[in-house]
Amino acid sequence: MQSFELTILGCSSATPTSKRNPTAQLLNIAERFFLIDCGEATQIQLRKFKLKFQRINHIFISHLHGDHYLGLVGLLASMHLLGRTTELHLYCPEELKEIIDIQHKHSQSYLSYKIVYHFHKYINEDILFEDDKVIVKAIVLNHRVPCCGFVFIEKPLMANILPETIKKYDIPTEKIFDIKKGADFKLADGKIIPNSDLVLNKHKTRSYAYCSDTCYDETLIPFIKNVDLLYHEATFMNEKEERAKETFHSTTSQAATIAKKAEVRQLMIGHYSARYKDLKPLLAEAKAVFDNTILAIEGVCTRVDNVI
Amino acid sequence: MQSFELTILGCSSATPTSKRNPTAQLLNIAERFFLIDCGEATQIQLRKFKLKFQRINHIFISHLHGDHYLGLVGLLASMHLLGRTTELHLYCPEELKEIIDIQHKHSQSYLSYKIVYHFHKYINEDILFEDDKVIVKAIVLNHRVPCCGFVFIEKPLMANILPETIKKYDIPTEKIFDIKKGADFKLADGKIIPNSDLVLNKHKTRSYAYCSDTCYDETLIPFIKNVDLLYHEATFMNEKEERAKETFHSTTSQAATIAKKAEVRQLMIGHYSARYKDLKPLLAEAKAVFDNTILAIEGVCTRVDNVI
Repeated sequence: MQSFELTILGCSSATPTSKRNPTAQLLNIAERFFLIDCGEATQIQLRKFKLKFQRINHIFISHLHGDHYLGLVGLLASMHLLGRTTELHLYCPEELKEIIDIQHKHSQSYLSYKIVYHFHKYINEDILFEDDKVIVKAIVLNHRVPCCGFVFIEKPLMANILPETIKKYDIPTEKIFDIKKGADFKLADGKIIPNSDLVLNKHKTRSYAYCSDTCYDETLIPFIKNVDLLYHEATFMNEKEERAKETFHSTTSQAATIAKKAEVRQLMIGHYSARYKDLKPLLAEAKAVFDNTILAIEGVCTRVDNVI
Repeated sequence: MQSFELTILGCSSATPTSKRNPTAQLLNIAERFFLIDCGEATQIQLRKFKLKFQRINHIFISHLHGDHYLGLVGLLASMHLLGRTTELHLYCPEELKEIIDIQHKHSQSYLSYKIVYHFHKYINEDILFEDDKVIVKAIVLNHRVPCCGFVFIEKPLMANILPETIKKYDIPTEKIFDIKKGADFKLADGKIIPNSDLVLNKHKTRSYAYCSDTCYDETLIPFIKNVDLLYHEATFMNEKEERAKETFHSTTSQAATIAKKAEVRQLMIGHYSARYKDLKPLLAEAKAVFDNTILAIEGVCTRVDNVI
């Protein structure tokens, strides 16, 4: 099975605690490693969890609050010091380039590899990345500063053709590839054999949506509809709904309501306020609205399966 | 006894490892808390070791290589988020202000307290800080970019006067303070009683010198002569002397040679290259030149005693 797995590197909100680091996640889809946000100490977390950071070629930064990007300059430096030459793609607010450039200027540093910048346009469904396996689209989040979420969608996998059908219908080799991709097959007498009769193990196309940071905003729903895994921030418990509103963050129930309305398969909450030592009450609040909810926990890898 | 203790928060060089963080140290002299350098994740280390960072009012940044300052913007933000109003003094290269300001601008952030900047002049013995207990002076280090070391010197402590001498020599109350500070006492007949006959527990004035990052440079010696504790970087073992020279760093034996020539009481080495998993060989090399050497180890607090 092609990889589709998310590892949490940091799940705290603005102030880290001794147990929780600021936001960062590593998403592996088909051995493409996407780093999503890069809070302080992300490079240390990657090392701690034995994740090879030179395999990361694409970094997505949602917005310019420190807890989402302060680990980036250190990570870029370590990639350089360890001899990286592969170019690195950075999907980020335009202003981040200035922040990086000024630090390289004053430290009299350069990088041994090229950074290819892709600045956010803050347009829903804007295609940020695409290759033969994955497509990544933007979601405009609703936060105190311009903020971009991301939807990562796996492209359809080829199905396995049933060996007996090749013989039965005398399918020529040159047609097999099309059938694996979903084509029907036309017999010599003009009869159409539907694709579903020719293949097995038809895979589900999986998707992951990242929504942090954002206040409760139903306009996100069409863009995250039916995703397999939704990460939605839940900085506060319900009793702090006013505080959530003031700071453009969400509560547990708000995250779960978005998950429910968007009919996602599973919700992961995170970006917890430092005030919460025990996360079980946050999970309980979210589950009361949307049962298939899990907690973001540092070091834990969540695999999204592709069984239909 | 007045506090004089150094806690290591990070002892790695440029690339952190899963076990060692970039440079940061917390020095407590008489309950003044001085943060020396602030590598990435310093705020996380402070929390981990249960050191209250709101007590830090003075931060000294040696130079603008990322492993010495990348944790600063995050620490400043957390101080703000936790409600700090006390002004914070920052002793640093002038360019750091621009790096901080641009990040606050792009994150649309402000701080609830004032930063008072004191820019390095890169002059040996330049007085950076002084109050009734402590004086801090600059040392010009020799690194690839402008770099400043620091010497922290405790001011003389008042001695305890021997109770029997007050009676014996009929010392008036108004003279006691001067005697405790070191004055002799003149009897009515003109005879001088030396201070050493009047007081006990005469304390040694303690000092700590921080030399990181620097290549081997004997011109530092006069400014760190006889300090009680010298932290001198030892990025490399002796076999990498060429590499040390190229990168303006020091080897273990070079650090120990400086300690020996400066006749310091104790040497602490640190700023270890990530290549060294086991630090015992580094200690052995340094001790071969200067026996009273210890390793910088994260979380370990070294107390400097004041026994003469």
